[in-house]
Amino acid sequence: MKSAIDELEKKARAAKAASRKLAHLPSEVKNGALVAIAEALVKREKEILECSQADCNEAKASGMGEAMLDRLVLSAERIAGMAQDVRTVASLPDPVGEAFDARMLPNGLRIERRRVPLGVIGTIYESRPNVTVDMASLCLKSGNAVILRGGKEAAHSNWILAKVVKEALAESGVPDDAVQFIESTERALVNHMLKMKDIIDLIIPRGSEQLVAMVTGNAAMPVLAAGAGVCHTYVDSSADLEKAVAIAYNAKVQRPTVCNALDALLVHADVAERYLPMVAADWARAGVEMHCDECSLKVLSPISNLKLAPASDGDWGKEFLALVAAVKVVDSLDEALEHIARYSSGHSEAIITEDYSAAMRFLEEVDAACVYVNASTRFTDGGQFGLGAEVGISTQKFHARGPMGLKELTTYKWVIMGSGQVRP
Amino acid sequence: MKSAIDELEKKARAAKAASRKLAHLPSEVKNGALVAIAEALVKREKEILECSQADCNEAKASGMGEAMLDRLVLSAERIAGMAQDVRTVASLPDPVGEAFDARMLPNGLRIERRRVPLGVIGTIYESRPNVTVDMASLCLKSGNAVILRGGKEAAHSNWILAKVVKEALAESGVPDDAVQFIESTERALVNHMLKMKDIIDLIIPRGSEQLVAMVTGNAAMPVLAAGAGVCHTYVDSSADLEKAVAIAYNAKVQRPTVCNALDALLVHADVAERYLPMVAADWARAGVEMHCDECSLKVLSPISNLKLAPASDGDWGKEFLALVAAVKVVDSLDEALEHIARYSSGHSEAIITEDYSAAMRFLEEVDAACVYVNASTRFTDGGQFGLGAEVGISTQKFHARGPMGLKELTTYKWVIMGSGQVRP
Repeated sequence: MKSAIDELEKKARAAKAASRKLAHLPSEVKNGALVAIAEALVKREKEILECSQADCNEAKASGMGEAMLDRLVLSAERIAGMAQDVRTVASLPDPVGEAFDARMLPNGLRIERRRVPLGVIGTIYESRPNVTVDMASLCLKSGNAVILRGGKEAAHSNWILAKVVKEALAESGVPDDAVQFIESTERALVNHMLKMKDIIDLIIPRGSEQLVAMVTGNAAMPVLAAGAGVCHTYVDSSADLEKAVAIAYNAKVQRPTVCNALDALLVHADVAERYLPMVAADWARAGVEMHCDECSLKVLSPISNLKLAPASDGDWGKEFLALVAAVKVVDSLDEALEHIARYSSGHSEAIITEDYSAAMRFLEEVDAACVYVNASTRFTDGGQFGLGAEVGISTQKFHARGPMGLKELTTYKWVIMGSGQVRP
Repeated sequence: MKSAIDELEKKARAAKAASRKLAHLPSEVKNGALVAIAEALVKREKEILECSQADCNEAKASGMGEAMLDRLVLSAERIAGMAQDVRTVASLPDPVGEAFDARMLPNGLRIERRRVPLGVIGTIYESRPNVTVDMASLCLKSGNAVILRGGKEAAHSNWILAKVVKEALAESGVPDDAVQFIESTERALVNHMLKMKDIIDLIIPRGSEQLVAMVTGNAAMPVLAAGAGVCHTYVDSSADLEKAVAIAYNAKVQRPTVCNALDALLVHADVAERYLPMVAADWARAGVEMHCDECSLKVLSPISNLKLAPASDGDWGKEFLALVAAVKVVDSLDEALEHIARYSSGHSEAIITEDYSAAMRFLEEVDAACVYVNASTRFTDGGQFGLGAEVGISTQKFHARGPMGLKELTTYKWVIMGSGQVRP
């Protein structure tokens, strides 16, 4: 254990030293390195596949399930996908160096905020080896050094991917200490890493809810974490019901296993009898199970071929990540707002309405990272929002909220240019 | 203890409920309440002075020292000053509601980030009772509810000030639950408060370094804290030495007890023999003690009437908060940058130079909240930077860096206005 800690500390110090150089690299050098990484990934496909095979063999021997195995395995197609993602990061605008709030103070001092990297980012992740390349490229582009601590299952894949990345950096004139891969998979090492706040400026956990909770609960430095999405769509009395059906269908069915999918459908009593059978019919064809409150159950139970169940208390505020939706009839916009305030996880919330005042109130009063009028919550995504790439979707309020792109991996410094000013 | 915790939890829930209303109050209502607070403070001066007297009597009986007593005591003048500060906050622009990054996505969705309050801010502070009014007014203006937990020494003063504030709110149509004052001064209550992350969105400690460290180390929610300022001023070989003397004098002498005062003076070897005697003469007249490295000691020791001492290792990276400065001769800009990278606390750093490239390199490479060319580090201040009022000066990199004004007490939400869009 001691040698693993020594290795971690040595690599962390090297990352810190490299971060000072990385912060000032011109975009074209960083982009050149990113393209070199993309090329190297494709060129060294054979080595990468061999390492992935070694991980898979060990995983199978240990009895890993199919779903986990699928997350772990790399194929030629997945490697090409990773390379393409790196090229996309290369093509994005560089957040570093942007000046904002620039002005001249009355005493002649010129002052501005200038966007700069955070410094050293630590990332702790689980079985998906693509996170190695993903985080390395996002950190490089945003001028941050990165310390990668992947899962034991993907140890061989992560190792070769980090090696490919580092060699591509070295060839591109970027200090390869900017990317540090921790080889030891000892669990206790993570606890040590989470206390290194003098070196690591930010921790990003990527993986299960348990991992995120463990990191958030123990890190001494700030954490940028994707949170659960308990997403509501409220169909107002004035909703265009055709739109409301299409949006609820999209929000629930298009990709049910992700955080921005619909979890609960709230329907105004005035339109419940017309709307619920419409949406239920479409949902039923897609296999959606509806957990209904008393009132919606009464409307829907006479209809055949629906998957209905009475809602239990646990259904409100639950992230289903499956073809299941909780359904509730409400008497007013106020009741919908109250329900959302109580059960929302602060991710994405939508109202479907043609009523101007209802739309404005919803946008104003719902406290969530993303609030929608007449659109599917599935749009909550860095790519969809035009951020280009995302680290995750934050339900925290501090520093970054909603989709976190490259800009959210930076901070700013105040730059003050004087000509001899002193404070009176 | 149990009843104190119950009181805290009840008040925190009331603050949370009030925060939902507060977030949508128009500026004119908030400003009206702030003016009402200012008027009430002056009108109720007598009550406030009586409470302050009670605190002072207890403090004297317990043997409190003069410096602490001075921080504690309120006078008619100080009350008028508090009232004036509240009026200033009323006159500042309201950060809430500002839209930024607004644009139309290719699919017709209109998207923007909209500035919103954080929600509930908890503040833990020590002997200065003016913090009660200061934090209440800053939080109110930024649309946040606040939970005030002051020090035991100022219990009577804090109590009456919170009462005056709450009564002024109630008269101004602002829910007075928006300001919660915790009466119990049991120490264990703070630990409980620091774990209430589901209700309290942000903790702001104000007081000693020990208090800040305790809060930062134990809070489950984000902390916005003022950090120590170990501030360097580097006099380059090309500096205008007259400017360099005036700036170093101002940075060290104008107010030596604050975080943005000069702690260490670095001087390029090429100008050390000319510059050091100039600055030393001025500093000596103000009573500044110089802790000198070998080289600067050699230059200065022949001169009479200086307060000189050899620098010890502990002088580098030390925040003196007094008329003391560490002094070091460096051979190059690189050596100065290395020294600053090693010993800076990331607060305020300055270079004095007429060399364009040296100035640009310093601004680019120094990693601190505020970096200066040819100006005194004493300007690092929310008021001086035009932010109007400040909560403190952050040396953290996350969320807020440098002077923290009203904007730093807010976050944003994404607002998305559609016309039926679904994700393909």
